[in-house]
Amino acid sequence: MDTPFYPPRRTLMGPGPSDVSPRVLEALSRDTIGHLDPQFIQLMDEVKRLLQYAFDTKNEMTFAVSAPGSAGMECCFVNLVEPGDKVVVAQNGAFGGRMKENVERAGGEAIMVMDDWGHAVDTDKVAEALKANPDAKILAFVHAETSTGALSDAETLCTLAKENDCLTIVDAVTSLGGSPLHVDDWGIDAIYSGTQKCLSCVPGISPVSFSNRALDVIRQRETKVQSWFLDINLLLGYWGGETKRAYHHTAPVNAMYALHESLTILKNEGIEKAWNRHHRNHGALKAGFEAMGMNFIVDESSRLPQLNAVTIPEGVDEAQVRSQLLDGYSLEIGAGLGSLAGKIWRVGLMGHSSTPKNVFLCLGAMDAVMTDMGAPINSGVAVKAARAFYDAV
Amino acid sequence: MDTPFYPPRRTLMGPGPSDVSPRVLEALSRDTIGHLDPQFIQLMDEVKRLLQYAFDTKNEMTFAVSAPGSAGMECCFVNLVEPGDKVVVAQNGAFGGRMKENVERAGGEAIMVMDDWGHAVDTDKVAEALKANPDAKILAFVHAETSTGALSDAETLCTLAKENDCLTIVDAVTSLGGSPLHVDDWGIDAIYSGTQKCLSCVPGISPVSFSNRALDVIRQRETKVQSWFLDINLLLGYWGGETKRAYHHTAPVNAMYALHESLTILKNEGIEKAWNRHHRNHGALKAGFEAMGMNFIVDESSRLPQLNAVTIPEGVDEAQVRSQLLDGYSLEIGAGLGSLAGKIWRVGLMGHSSTPKNVFLCLGAMDAVMTDMGAPINSGVAVKAARAFYDAV
Repeated sequence: MDTPFYPPRRTLMGPGPSDVSPRVLEALSRDTIGHLDPQFIQLMDEVKRLLQYAFDTKNEMTFAVSAPGSAGMECCFVNLVEPGDKVVVAQNGAFGGRMKENVERAGGEAIMVMDDWGHAVDTDKVAEALKANPDAKILAFVHAETSTGALSDAETLCTLAKENDCLTIVDAVTSLGGSPLHVDDWGIDAIYSGTQKCLSCVPGISPVSFSNRALDVIRQRETKVQSWFLDINLLLGYWGGETKRAYHHTAPVNAMYALHESLTILKNEGIEKAWNRHHRNHGALKAGFEAMGMNFIVDESSRLPQLNAVTIPEGVDEAQVRSQLLDGYSLEIGAGLGSLAGKIWRVGLMGHSSTPKNVFLCLGAMDAVMTDMGAPINSGVAVKAARAFYDAV
Repeated sequence: MDTPFYPPRRTLMGPGPSDVSPRVLEALSRDTIGHLDPQFIQLMDEVKRLLQYAFDTKNEMTFAVSAPGSAGMECCFVNLVEPGDKVVVAQNGAFGGRMKENVERAGGEAIMVMDDWGHAVDTDKVAEALKANPDAKILAFVHAETSTGALSDAETLCTLAKENDCLTIVDAVTSLGGSPLHVDDWGIDAIYSGTQKCLSCVPGISPVSFSNRALDVIRQRETKVQSWFLDINLLLGYWGGETKRAYHHTAPVNAMYALHESLTILKNEGIEKAWNRHHRNHGALKAGFEAMGMNFIVDESSRLPQLNAVTIPEGVDEAQVRSQLLDGYSLEIGAGLGSLAGKIWRVGLMGHSSTPKNVFLCLGAMDAVMTDMGAPINSGVAVKAARAFYDAV
């Protein structure tokens, strides 16, 4: 007999997935109905309305791509980029590099504006690149770099794009629900996110939104969108408008129940309150790490509260620490990606994971594990420092 | 306050999704863990092994694409088709047409072999097309057409392809788990399926398998795969081999729990037994429909037991019947697609939905609804005919 799989109960404080609320898991497990059932169509409308709230947009074409954030990214690029198009891509981490791949695979030309990993996108350099490339069609950048924890100034970047008559594609995988984001006010044309970060839904679907300006460009393409699955012209028939829905693909019905529930939780908390909660718990984690003598790689001015990239104390075997945290505390934190592999940990405080309890657990466990190893940290002070932070604010 | 969404409890007898077992829904709702957690990696290995069982293959690159069947289809085409490649596509329904879209969007040339909707693919016509196009690289066809319920002779078609030195891409969305399928014996090179048909898992992920011959072709491509998300060269690092897994995208962790559970159910039942169960329940449904005086559009020799396409009795408003079944019996059956819209119903008996209880419910409800409408059917005999069928076999 083959046997069931029972996952361990983890505390998820890596770069995502974050802890999923029991409410969301319960919603996920409700009875499956058809993807064209009138009640499912109503749910889709509700999800759209809640996503409009989360993105702060009135965009009609706000929906969930039936695949992870990487496909949400691809959906934005393959619809807006035609062969030969110039796209200015600001890269300050791993996901800017993935944007370049997307541009090139869609036949476009990527003009790269490079910043060091851990820094925000330099708006001056982007302004220069846009001026040097007046024929650029799109500016693409990552709002919150999941690989480093750096937050970039999306509002200024979108203003620059508009001044140069460019569309914008924005990666909000880690920012949505965790950091202020205003799609309409900032004039973002295409944006994608993930469900498994600050929304604390299960991984697998990707919230996106397209402005009417973007839709006009997509409708006037000279070539077909290279992906049938991600073609907005076809998806409009399933997710857009008020009229009868046309079958395109079978939506991930149960994942949509879960997304609806996680967005309902966000709406009922209030998104500003959620941003503040992320900010406050980050403050406590920071107080703890600093008391231990550990450093953040991102400057305070552009540091994401939901993703804390800290340098590994000298002489410490970082993989051993992670594995002891997992085995001894059932606690997951993240490793570094790309050029930061082996140099940093990424500690997430996203969505449902962003709680004082998790701050205490993480600081206490990291303190204990590293003290045991003889790591060069100030032992036994981190949890107290976090407690003092909460007591003071 | 925004409120939770509670779906109705349906009986799903359309073309998918099918009824999802409570066991699968419970597995789906287990605690989320990280997509690089050692225990999740173990689960991925288990899923691979169970998919190899279901596909009857030893292919190492057997895995689940993190998106619905449409993306599984696209994964096969974008990896194997390079610009300029000739692909012979046999079309006998809606999904063959989608294959053509996929070939062309990947820059290939589709040589179409057309058969009427409701017929199996004509192997003679395919043989001719392959002979007329000795430079064709791939033969693509649908094993079980979800739009019509026709089963094609995959074994013969694969033999023809091999004789003409062609790779094969096979759509097994509706056949996997419901009809005999032998990937290795038949020499299929790339195959995709869905989770929400005869596996009775929630919709959203797509089982696929690639032969080593296909992988060699993919490794020797001259151009990059146009989709980053679906590039097998990158997915090999996450799903392939025995060594350390590389992060590619965040897998839909909970959906993988559910797929694992549904495959475990299949394995424990035994796939031959599952095929027989589909065959038997189809026999009873057929006895009932025939007793009512209704006709199948597919010839008995190529009729799928899991998807029954029946013509709508004269003068009957088909949409009204479906909506009365949904409202009065919480029973979903499917409408016709494309050229068969308004002409047929598609009644699924897939996976967990393939039970005597569902056969009786469906026949009884359709009998009652149509009798009420004064439809030209033999009333009050369908359920009895199905009962007699079961008693006789």
